Amino acid sequence: MVDRERSAARIEQDIETLAGTQYTRSDEAIRRYAYTPEYRATLDYFTAALRELGFDVSEDPVGTLVARNRPAGEKVFGVGSHCDSNRNGGKYDGTMGVVTALEVCRLNAELGYDLPLQLVSFLEEEGSGFGQMLLGSRIMLQRVTEDELRESFRAIDDGRPFWEHAADAGYEPERWRESIHALDDLTGWIEMHIEQARVLQDTDNRIGVVTAIAGYVHADITVTGRADHAGATPMDFRLDPGLVAAECILELERLARAAGKGTVGTVGEIAFEPSLINVVPSSARFSLDIRGTDEDSFRSVAAEIAAFAEQAAAGRGMTARFEQRQTLAATPMDERIVGALEAAAQETGEPFMLMPSGAAHDTMCVADRVPSAMVFVPCKDGISHSPLEDARPADAALAAEIILNAVRSLQ
Amino acid sequence: MVDRERSAARIEQDIETLAGTQYTRSDEAIRRYAYTPEYRATLDYFTAALRELGFDVSEDPVGTLVARNRPAGEKVFGVGSHCDSNRNGGKYDGTMGVVTALEVCRLNAELGYDLPLQLVSFLEEEGSGFGQMLLGSRIMLQRVTEDELRESFRAIDDGRPFWEHAADAGYEPERWRESIHALDDLTGWIEMHIEQARVLQDTDNRIGVVTAIAGYVHADITVTGRADHAGATPMDFRLDPGLVAAECILELERLARAAGKGTVGTVGEIAFEPSLINVVPSSARFSLDIRGTDEDSFRSVAAEIAAFAEQAAAGRGMTARFEQRQTLAATPMDERIVGALEAAAQETGEPFMLMPSGAAHDTMCVADRVPSAMVFVPCKDGISHSPLEDARPADAALAAEIILNAVRSLQ
Repeated sequence: MVDRERSAARIEQDIETLAGTQYTRSDEAIRRYAYTPEYRATLDYFTAALRELGFDVSEDPVGTLVARNRPAGEKVFGVGSHCDSNRNGGKYDGTMGVVTALEVCRLNAELGYDLPLQLVSFLEEEGSGFGQMLLGSRIMLQRVTEDELRESFRAIDDGRPFWEHAADAGYEPERWRESIHALDDLTGWIEMHIEQARVLQDTDNRIGVVTAIAGYVHADITVTGRADHAGATPMDFRLDPGLVAAECILELERLARAAGKGTVGTVGEIAFEPSLINVVPSSARFSLDIRGTDEDSFRSVAAEIAAFAEQAAAGRGMTARFEQRQTLAATPMDERIVGALEAAAQETGEPFMLMPSGAAHDTMCVADRVPSAMVFVPCKDGISHSPLEDARPADAALAAEIILNAVRSLQ
Repeated sequence: MVDRERSAARIEQDIETLAGTQYTRSDEAIRRYAYTPEYRATLDYFTAALRELGFDVSEDPVGTLVARNRPAGEKVFGVGSHCDSNRNGGKYDGTMGVVTALEVCRLNAELGYDLPLQLVSFLEEEGSGFGQMLLGSRIMLQRVTEDELRESFRAIDDGRPFWEHAADAGYEPERWRESIHALDDLTGWIEMHIEQARVLQDTDNRIGVVTAIAGYVHADITVTGRADHAGATPMDFRLDPGLVAAECILELERLARAAGKGTVGTVGEIAFEPSLINVVPSSARFSLDIRGTDEDSFRSVAAEIAAFAEQAAAGRGMTARFEQRQTLAATPMDERIVGALEAAAQETGEPFMLMPSGAAHDTMCVADRVPSAMVFVPCKDGISHSPLEDARPADAALAAEIILNAVRSLQ
């Protein structure tokens, strides 16, 4: 029924167009973020395409794009993603999700389904403008404070507040709380996104139906020992915090594996002080990124690694301090929508899998109010947030077909 | 026979004088290095004190101070150290050794021993001027090339070559090879230095008689894995080089302890790339400082950790590269001089021990040509290269007495 090749060609054309010079602030990467001419041009591109399909297109009080083919008050099903990028980003992260949602709208018209749809493209998912991830969806779900918008959230480029930038761009930040009304008529929400890891590629699947978005704990552990001369201090006279850090790095791996249920633990940053080849470190700090879709499992790993660090440090006569930076609960996807996506994927005969999302997405916010789900497509070697990002329009076309049929089955 | 209190008072006065504003370039630390007015003032201080004792004082072609109480050609016994400091240094590292050597010369005169002595204060032991450790003694022992002196060795302050700075200060760098003649008449050499670790303090010893100076291997290991999204990449899909680094850090400790004979191993620097909390590192680099007085033992540890890293990386599907920065052989001290120092220490009735030096010293170079030994005194908490450095003039006075009596017994 769906001409997948034509869908793929349209998706590819959208993606390539939006990788053109007028849509990015960098010669070497996709770089677009809120309130820049390049971001404006991108919204205009989607606006024109959606108006052609008969959609009513508007923007919420801070700039999230909302387009629907039914008047306000009538129930609609939501599809979309974000079309801002990392500062050193690629063509696919976010944008491919909005393009695929647009293709769903196109197919809906072409095939005469006339499903009630609402496309949303969230503002500032990547945080490239103001250093705040998921900003548009957090504003929509009232997960920010007015003080943050007026004062604390400031532009990376010029340090001026979000509030001023939004007003200068013609928006009405003082009405930010009304942003939530974009969700009023939604009966469901599906976001398509590139996977940002290599599971689909390495398991030869073309589609991932997301069952839950991982929650996380971001924290640091600092072990305090004692700086000593690396040559003159015998092994028995040392308080070397680097050894405790090493024990914790290995223990975190063991704990994450033992926890199972997709729990992951990563030490991405490490720093020794004073960081000289010939000095036993006085302190060692390392970061923790612990995630999972099973709330108990990943929170246990965080608690256990904190306790382990304390014990391991004490065992060597030192101290360890665990400091949480940030935490977010896991977000289960709606079973009914996941089931509809699974059935629609099954019907295509193409290889797909159920999987968690380890990365955070705007859907984490939407799911607060609206039954939600996500669809992933593979990205080459799991690379994202890079100009090397690569994904196949044919997979996106397949996703569009699956989303369309899932929404149809849910009516 | 020796009035230790008077010696201690004189040593304290020398040390405190040389900590005065005209002898340091910093308000908060001792900072003096070659060819600065502060370093010149320090050499002048020693020159005046030695001339008062009837010594003939000169400087070698690059600025190492050489003073003797016998004409050239007659045999003399060498004592001394260095009087430059770290950029953020303390009052004792180096300077206390020269001051103690001066006290040996004073006692020699006062007690009417008239032992033939030569005091040497080496240029640029710390490398604060040109980033080159043991520079004066390496020049003396011809362990540098003319090209290094003319071109590669450049001032930290202004980037100009050592050669130009030496010439501007009135020296004759073109005659640098003649520097070695300062050793021609030496029958032996004893350097006194603060320990720079906490062994003497923690074992309640006032004197360490050094049996050997550790050799070392300085190297880096770089493990190459693959950057992946820390949330989206399951544990089984990762190539995390930080885990291999952690295994190596713990294995180095095990290997150093197993090697015994005072072998030590330290990871003082570590760096993950790209160093982001939410990205599995693409690479992990860490430094190795492996030392010991037993050549076979510490070199085996270096070879074994390199092999271990390769295996551990391969076991996880990654690669590891070992790159040596620098290496230096262990330097055994002269048994006869060590025996004389031990006997002289025994005679004082004060607690002392035989010990290795883990730190490098100018004596490593001198020992190439001249039977050599060293004496350590405790420094508080092992702290050195810091304004917090602390040592007791009374211990230095004890060292002066021991050195004097050892030299006497060797005549």
